[in-house]
Amino acid sequence: MTPSTIPRHDPAHKGLASDNYAGVHPEILEAIVRANGGHQSPYGEDVYTQALQDVFRRHFGPDALAYPVFNGTAANVVSLRSMTAPWEAVVCAETAHVNTDEGGAPEVAGGIKLRTVPTPDGKLTPSLVDLQAWGFGDVHRAQPRVVSISNTTELGTVYTPEETRAVCDHAHSLGMLVHLDGARLCNAAAALDVPLRALTTDAGVDVVSFGGTKLGLMYGEAVVVLNPEAARGVEYVRKTLMQLASKMRFVSAQFEALLEGDLWLRNARHANAMARRLAAAVADVPGVRVTRAVEANGVFAVLPPDVTARLQKRFPFYTWDEVTGEVRWMCAWDTTEEDVDAFAAAVREELRGVSP
Amino acid sequence: MTPSTIPRHDPAHKGLASDNYAGVHPEILEAIVRANGGHQSPYGEDVYTQALQDVFRRHFGPDALAYPVFNGTAANVVSLRSMTAPWEAVVCAETAHVNTDEGGAPEVAGGIKLRTVPTPDGKLTPSLVDLQAWGFGDVHRAQPRVVSISNTTELGTVYTPEETRAVCDHAHSLGMLVHLDGARLCNAAAALDVPLRALTTDAGVDVVSFGGTKLGLMYGEAVVVLNPEAARGVEYVRKTLMQLASKMRFVSAQFEALLEGDLWLRNARHANAMARRLAAAVADVPGVRVTRAVEANGVFAVLPPDVTARLQKRFPFYTWDEVTGEVRWMCAWDTTEEDVDAFAAAVREELRGVSP
Amino acid sequence: MTPSTIPRHDPAHKGLASDNYAGVHPEILEAIVRANGGHQSPYGEDVYTQALQDVFRRHFGPDALAYPVFNGTAANVVSLRSMTAPWEAVVCAETAHVNTDEGGAPEVAGGIKLRTVPTPDGKLTPSLVDLQAWGFGDVHRAQPRVVSISNTTELGTVYTPEETRAVCDHAHSLGMLVHLDGARLCNAAAALDVPLRALTTDAGVDVVSFGGTKLGLMYGEAVVVLNPEAARGVEYVRKTLMQLASKMRFVSAQFEALLEGDLWLRNARHANAMARRLAAAVADVPGVRVTRAVEANGVFAVLPPDVTARLQKRFPFYTWDEVTGEVRWMCAWDTTEEDVDAFAAAVREELRGVSP
Amino acid sequence: MTPSTIPRHDPAHKGLASDNYAGVHPEILEAIVRANGGHQSPYGEDVYTQALQDVFRRHFGPDALAYPVFNGTAANVVSLRSMTAPWEAVVCAETAHVNTDEGGAPEVAGGIKLRTVPTPDGKLTPSLVDLQAWGFGDVHRAQPRVVSISNTTELGTVYTPEETRAVCDHAHSLGMLVHLDGARLCNAAAALDVPLRALTTDAGVDVVSFGGTKLGLMYGEAVVVLNPEAARGVEYVRKTLMQLASKMRFVSAQFEALLEGDLWLRNARHANAMARRLAAAVADVPGVRVTRAVEANGVFAVLPPDVTARLQKRFPFYTWDEVTGEVRWMCAWDTTEEDVDAFAAAVREELRGVSP
Repeated sequence: MTPSTIPRHDPAHKGLASDNYAGVHPEILEAIVRANGGHQSPYGEDVYTQALQDVFRRHFGPDALAYPVFNGTAANVVSLRSMTAPWEAVVCAETAHVNTDEGGAPEVAGGIKLRTVPTPDGKLTPSLVDLQAWGFGDVHRAQPRVVSISNTTELGTVYTPEETRAVCDHAHSLGMLVHLDGARLCNAAAALDVPLRALTTDAGVDVVSFGGTKLGLMYGEAVVVLNPEAARGVEYVRKTLMQLASKMRFVSAQFEALLEGDLWLRNARHANAMARRLAAAVADVPGVRVTRAVEANGVFAVLPPDVTARLQKRFPFYTWDEVTGEVRWMCAWDTTEEDVDAFAAAVREELRGVSP
Repeated sequence: MTPSTIPRHDPAHKGLASDNYAGVHPEILEAIVRANGGHQSPYGEDVYTQALQDVFRRHFGPDALAYPVFNGTAANVVSLRSMTAPWEAVVCAETAHVNTDEGGAPEVAGGIKLRTVPTPDGKLTPSLVDLQAWGFGDVHRAQPRVVSISNTTELGTVYTPEETRAVCDHAHSLGMLVHLDGARLCNAAAALDVPLRALTTDAGVDVVSFGGTKLGLMYGEAVVVLNPEAARGVEYVRKTLMQLASKMRFVSAQFEALLEGDLWLRNARHANAMARRLAAAVADVPGVRVTRAVEANGVFAVLPPDVTARLQKRFPFYTWDEVTGEVRWMCAWDTTEEDVDAFAAAVREELRGVSP
Repeated sequence: MTPSTIPRHDPAHKGLASDNYAGVHPEILEAIVRANGGHQSPYGEDVYTQALQDVFRRHFGPDALAYPVFNGTAANVVSLRSMTAPWEAVVCAETAHVNTDEGGAPEVAGGIKLRTVPTPDGKLTPSLVDLQAWGFGDVHRAQPRVVSISNTTELGTVYTPEETRAVCDHAHSLGMLVHLDGARLCNAAAALDVPLRALTTDAGVDVVSFGGTKLGLMYGEAVVVLNPEAARGVEYVRKTLMQLASKMRFVSAQFEALLEGDLWLRNARHANAMARRLAAAVADVPGVRVTRAVEANGVFAVLPPDVTARLQKRFPFYTWDEVTGEVRWMCAWDTTEEDVDAFAAAVREELRGVSP
Repeated sequence: MTPSTIPRHDPAHKGLASDNYAGVHPEILEAIVRANGGHQSPYGEDVYTQALQDVFRRHFGPDALAYPVFNGTAANVVSLRSMTAPWEAVVCAETAHVNTDEGGAPEVAGGIKLRTVPTPDGKLTPSLVDLQAWGFGDVHRAQPRVVSISNTTELGTVYTPEETRAVCDHAHSLGMLVHLDGARLCNAAAALDVPLRALTTDAGVDVVSFGGTKLGLMYGEAVVVLNPEAARGVEYVRKTLMQLASKMRFVSAQFEALLEGDLWLRNARHANAMARRLAAAVADVPGVRVTRAVEANGVFAVLPPDVTARLQKRFPFYTWDEVTGEVRWMCAWDTTEEDVDAFAAAVREELRGVSP
């Protein structure tokens, strides 16, 4: 047995750090295996990628066109670059992933100026958009062209169809377009019990970064163009931004497995349910305060820093705000009730100062 | 059975179009499966990526540092961007993949000027480098900083250790660095029967784009820094160029399976052997002329255009040069003797004007 | 007399819109005329540019190196690009010119991410810097590398030497550098009655965008590197960002005329004095409220919108904030006491509803 | 008398290095002086820039729109960036200024891939264009979108109207556009004795970089859009590429002085005549070989390296090709017959080995 035939890690070990700590859902892995063997044209000319278009259209309407890419940062930058001329800017929440966690990729790789707006809950509204959506026609001001929203937001909140529609209508009335960072779009749809198109196509969104990795894929996100007028040269932008997968059949087969049946919904509902279970389990624990509405698969809470420190040694999770001590607990498709209960018990233990 | 549980394609179908038409080698797929389950830190903080460093160091020497990325274009652009200041340029062969087949990614995503040199066989030499390596200190000339060579070249030829060393010594004497596009580096090493480091570290190469996809990976290439002085901020460049894989354990596990034993060598030798078999099989066929030395896994040949057209309907392959009618036949890790023999027979048939 | 020998405009017409509405100071124009005739090496190899270095060193200390460029946006972008690696970010006030009025040039032409901070008065402090200066070593966060301050600020306020020093010390303690947008640096120095180096070199600033145009030049700003360790490849960055003047002698001759004697100080003091005169003249006018400290050559005030509208027809000036009706009156080197008094009289007239 | 009131250089000193070693033509300087005084709106809202549009339309036809910028590199990059989407490429001669002498600005500041073609004389033809104008619709190939030609070329040759038309017709038939680098367009028009529009608008050119500096301006070039469909967002591109002059009246006044009468033609004719005089004066000198057709204001010649070295100490000029010893002698608007005769005499002297 060569070294690599021994698993390098304990497959029982899980935490609440992020939904991308989880692995690949078994049905996704099966789809990958099935797509193997023989030769297929590369770069999206394979039968899996072609078939994938129908799958996306069933969810997003007859005009939808999906362009698989490698990761979420790329889905955002390829989307935004395709939606803007070089002198146009993007309005987003200050907390947007594209602003905070992508290392400057929109600016560095895309040359795109972001104009940020502080928000109470990670969500933009028409009047928040207006804080940056002005100066049209003034060459001294990078021209506001796209409003980018995240649903689920980085703060675990969700936009309803009506809220989404309000932002879209307002943006369109200004001659702007709407991009949706949907790294956790399925969690939002599951939380609201609405189809994906209720939060996107039907609400007026123009282009979606559709997330797969956090919902059980090995890798792969998709730029989904809902309004063909809204994005230009996506296939070229994808290539020049180094996101054209050679053996794309394996990305597309994963998405097909996620979306052709209800795997996307099962995974999202499950992760959301685990977050609610966790919030409920700590709700009455003295010393813990859940700080934000638990609308999808994340729980934000404040607890004493020393307790946080001890807990993090047992279950990995992130401190969201070093100043306030707010932490984030994310549930994934593979988080179990036992995981939640064990964690909640640990919270109680550590708060009592009892070491396990 | 849902639609996606039926394979969408015939796993027996193969061609000679490119080594990225092939799928995933079974040992690679097993490694992926083994790496699944449980939680692992994302973005390269997982145990697989950490273990991978040892594997790469065994091949490339104790200073080697490997940074997995998604695809070959990205490996090249991340390498070159890390090796150059914004005002520095890259000297490469006119036929280099980075110049011809990457959609302008170096310029668009990296802002990097390429300075190209015509070559007889895809290979640079010190005197060919000199055609562009001048004007040092002149602000009007993008400063030549990197020589980028490909081994195996896009024309199927290979650089020997001595030839590589000559280019490296010359570049270094000019204060320049050397990047090697190694999308098919294993094929070159197998062809010459030398270890990987003979063509890289020991020959003076500074940074390698190490290819995995064409040798049986599902996805994944690596920027391998051999000279730590030669590349700056690789981890940041990888992130801003959208190449930091979230679930990186699955890329690293594949590379480990490829490189810890001799899978890389078996796959490369096999593909090379198939190319030699094919070249031999058509060597005496009237109407076919093999146009270039068959040094790795590609065969270039000229045959009558109508024969090419009929053959391409039966076995996919590319016309390399529309003007001369030169075609390229690439063998992959999964090309079999039967595939080669069937193709050679088809060539004979079509040249005799006999339809099958 | 051909059409162009008739002046196209009335040289008596002046307003309070901006200090770049003014023309060229006669002493500057004389210097241009003197530099004409005969041949001089282009691109900064001329005797004027060489002599200029001594002039700048007298003001900024023996390590200062000045690189003339065409305009202020360019001085900022060339400075910031030379001070940062491609993955590094710049912290600045939300109101900074580089963020609000340069059309996105830092992002589009430089690929530089700005991280903005709201301020009460356009000035950063160590604790305001801290709102964005964190996440060092985290690849997901564009690395904070430069603090960029403006003195005079866009709100007409000035940093004292002590305030500047506090920001610089703090930035340096974080491993960051300080850039100063000095489009109106001379106005700040004149206001505080300190030499230029008190606000720059002696306070720890690393690189200055030194403004000339607003102080009476025809065109021309300079990137002045005070700390040679802080900026890399400025001469190459200037060229690739298209800021290397061909006939540079004419830029340098202007700067020499401005800086070798006290023209810079005379012009700045005069403009500042005119602003104070204006503020005083309207201080007791009912219906006018001066909204900000008048520290340099700008006056900010609120007055009834209809009065503003009528005044703007007589004397061009800008409404600074459409919501509050705040306006900005800028005095230039050529603003006269008569101009100020006439404008103040007009303010009185319009507020009385008396048309002139 | 302060130091700067003494001219720093000898206005009698001239050489043959480049037409940008010369200063400002007296009529241009007068126009600058006339435009001074009083306030004018900045950024092109002044009366001089508005009037300039008529002047350019008289030369280039009723659809022409001129956008003044600072220098020639910028005129090229602003033009090309406005003509291309981010994934599109530019075909040009290997010797094109934009490829050889702009420090990589198109790639670095514009993210634009250049595809170069070797030419015998610096001129593209339809069949030379075809060497790079292919691969339309292939995402792997940066899409050829613009053919960029220079007239006068960098080798001193000129395109006739018919040659220009042939390139334009061919480019348009391929769905491509044509950009003309006209840093020395007036010299070409003067040489051929045709109006400017014969070489541009009437020949099918879409966008021109119109040169002023080499013809006697202090600074200033213009992007002239002849086909409004061909360039998008020029005013925004100009701003984000840092080419929007604050006190633009002074650029526009110079162009008006150059173009409203026949100053452009006088200056160009004179420089061309001086080149012919020089070529004639050395034609029969043993040891000197004029290597290229003298069609505009440059003379290329080969002479013994030691003679070149001695001559360059007396009259600055450039060695064009270090390998062959070919030198370039450029005549400017201020080159006199005496200058030429003195230089020709010096050539004779040095060839005889007689020191002056």
